Amino acid sequence: MKYKRSERLVYMTEYLTRRPNDLIPLTTFVNKFNQAKSSISEDIRILKEVFESEGIGLVQTTAGASGGVTFIPKITKTKAEEIVDHFIEELSKKNRLLPGGYLYMSDLVGNTHVMDEISELIVTMYENKEIDTVVTIATKGIPLAHAVARKLNVPVAVIRKDNKITEGSTVSVNYVSGSTRKIETMILAKRTLENGARVLVVDDFLRAGGSINGVIRLMEEFQAEVVGVSVLVESKDIIDRVFTDYTSIAKVANIDEYNETFDVEPGNCLEFFNKG
Amino acid sequence: MKYKRSERLVYMTEYLTRRPNDLIPLTTFVNKFNQAKSSISEDIRILKEVFESEGIGLVQTTAGASGGVTFIPKITKTKAEEIVDHFIEELSKKNRLLPGGYLYMSDLVGNTHVMDEISELIVTMYENKEIDTVVTIATKGIPLAHAVARKLNVPVAVIRKDNKITEGSTVSVNYVSGSTRKIETMILAKRTLENGARVLVVDDFLRAGGSINGVIRLMEEFQAEVVGVSVLVESKDIIDRVFTDYTSIAKVANIDEYNETFDVEPGNCLEFFNKG
Repeated sequence: MKYKRSERLVYMTEYLTRRPNDLIPLTTFVNKFNQAKSSISEDIRILKEVFESEGIGLVQTTAGASGGVTFIPKITKTKAEEIVDHFIEELSKKNRLLPGGYLYMSDLVGNTHVMDEISELIVTMYENKEIDTVVTIATKGIPLAHAVARKLNVPVAVIRKDNKITEGSTVSVNYVSGSTRKIETMILAKRTLENGARVLVVDDFLRAGGSINGVIRLMEEFQAEVVGVSVLVESKDIIDRVFTDYTSIAKVANIDEYNETFDVEPGNCLEFFNKG
Repeated sequence: MKYKRSERLVYMTEYLTRRPNDLIPLTTFVNKFNQAKSSISEDIRILKEVFESEGIGLVQTTAGASGGVTFIPKITKTKAEEIVDHFIEELSKKNRLLPGGYLYMSDLVGNTHVMDEISELIVTMYENKEIDTVVTIATKGIPLAHAVARKLNVPVAVIRKDNKITEGSTVSVNYVSGSTRKIETMILAKRTLENGARVLVVDDFLRAGGSINGVIRLMEEFQAEVVGVSVLVESKDIIDRVFTDYTSIAKVANIDEYNETFDVEPGNCLEFFNKG
């Protein structure tokens, strides 16, 4: 294959962005293009410059025999603010209010662009945490969990509230639902999570935090370490949440069913970007 | 911004592959780089050639005032065979067999690489079908549905078997489960699917087809047109399935719980690629 630099860069850009957080040996490209390592290194230098100046992400190169190149998605503060603004705009649409003060969010969770954007924001916040698995609760957390896991290059484990026959042996815990005060059960198939894994917990909505407490308890059964909890939306009206170490993309408050109004504001995720 | 061609191509490749099946006006790049339309068109010609010769996908350009460029993921027969082979290899691991002849598949469904690969195969089969929404059944179909929808640039609607309070008004149908012969209920929030939509149904496992029949009945309630049904795995041991118009990635057969063996073979998806 005789490719010019510009053609090689098209191929390499597609190859790397398709494999975020995956170490690609330089020899992959050296062999593919039958080029000297120095030419390929120069290609990567160009790619890296564009990625970094355009805020697409980092391109890390490691030297040595097992050396290679890794694309690490990472967004800027400006981009994070745009993503949060866009999400808040969508969330603010009045007709989301459902009986009982719930918010209709299935359209946002079913929107792959929104999930992709927000996953980049989440991945940027937890980039340095050495995550082995993304854990979520069925069903609305699954799309975001997958979008995040894809960028972290790790698998997803889905906790269920019903016991499906097709999961094999499971571990379960009981927990108290923060909203209804009922005792509920949460189940994870033994095989979906390695003992001692470092996990990032992702979910759609954080109310009183009963579910997340259940997840944390369930993770203890797997000797897993919860390195973070990230939710799309948190309810600001909850004062005494049992745990406080989480990130959110948006907060909703002052839900007024009678007048069909509620307020939306940025979640605490922007604090991460403000720290610089 | 003064970018050279090679730098522009890095940016454009990332931009287009991030937005499959989305018409990007040429002016996006003309303005971004402050370049003549003819230069940008030449950039796109190079990109198109690499994409097509490398089997990444098609790059379609449309002329005129509203003209632009669209990246259409499309894989080759060779790539499709590789994907099916890889999936079969994973699926063939003997320790997947669960009591009752079920297969443990949560690791595959939770693997974002596997879901991504297979979604490219599915998208290639249904590329010309003008799909408005990908429909799936909670919970194991969700990751594949999202991977497919992301590449088709359409939303996902998730059918549930329980009635969650946070969905608003719903439409439900009863159906007979093909395996257990029990009457079950299937529910879709009214707001998640537009009336008259053209839908692609995606699911993880096709046994007798009771669930898919339920989906088809539910789609009638929305005056939706089912333009295709695609499943990860079908059970070959079922002879009289009610509907036959579907695609599968793999088939399992001869499940022998006593000896803990089963056979796996390619699904009918390869017929599409063999037609050329």
